[in-house]
Amino acid sequence: MRRAVWVFVAVTAMWGGVAGLEARAQANEAAAIRTVLDAQVADWNRGDVTKFMAGYEDSPETTFVGATTIQQGFQTIVERYKKNYVGHEQMGTLTFKDIHIRLLPTAAGVTEYAVVTGRFHLERTAKGAATKDDGIFSLVWHKGPGGWKIVLDHTA
Amino acid sequence: MRRAVWVFVAVTAMWGGVAGLEARAQANEAAAIRTVLDAQVADWNRGDVTKFMAGYEDSPETTFVGATTIQQGFQTIVERYKKNYVGHEQMGTLTFKDIHIRLLPTAAGVTEYAVVTGRFHLERTAKGAATKDDGIFSLVWHKGPGGWKIVLDHTA
Repeated sequence: MRRAVWVFVAVTAMWGGVAGLEARAQANEAAAIRTVLDAQVADWNRGDVTKFMAGYEDSPETTFVGATTIQQGFQTIVERYKKNYVGHEQMGTLTFKDIHIRLLPTAAGVTEYAVVTGRFHLERTAKGAATKDDGIFSLVWHKGPGGWKIVLDHTA
Repeated sequence: MRRAVWVFVAVTAMWGGVAGLEARAQANEAAAIRTVLDAQVADWNRGDVTKFMAGYEDSPETTFVGATTIQQGFQTIVERYKKNYVGHEQMGTLTFKDIHIRLLPTAAGVTEYAVVTGRFHLERTAKGAATKDDGIFSLVWHKGPGGWKIVLDHTA
């Protein structure tokens, strides 16, 4: 009887330990995504579109969905940003809020994809082709050799 | 020398076979997603929101992102559809176009997630709270025990 209690305690502690490790691994992945988002905000606010774009996967499959268009390819998205936000004043100061990160593990517990939803706000003194200062976005992320990168950005 | 040629031919054929099998498996997954989308269109066009919703994962984490709101939870999304499209006339006839299915395999080749982009059009004689007849969507899909289901719908 006493041994059964010990086995129970040991197994429970082990399970708790495994669950704790998994929860910590998940928290680390979410924090890594948050770090990329924070870097994007800082790069945007320095007027550096090229560094901002380092948050996206450099692939012809990377997709940007806007209010009226669907665009494919990393280079196409770079050119879209450069055309729609010409210079630091049109880029302004970006802030995110209501950020929600959801990891998408496989049944076997492998986490290489995630989705992030949130809202953006731009504080700026000039506007170009992109006229919206507030909007909602959903982002699909992929963890590849270069870390977490956006593979689909739907901002409207 | 002749043996080396045979080995080369055999290995090339094997690789071709593996690549062929993988391509076929990927095509099957994309076709399975397409089948769910087609069923959703048919169910919508019969005015059956409940069956239409079978295409979404029944989870509190399932997310709907609209033009101005982010809503969490399968039941919340069901209620949103029922409130915004009251009855068969307000639902009208739904069609999709520009459907693009992108599977999201892990580095090990496990495909349990996918994204779909496309456009919708509604042909109808009445409108309720939802006034848009045309829009763009991106959907994140998860393949679980019940097959492929939408876990995030961003329609704007």
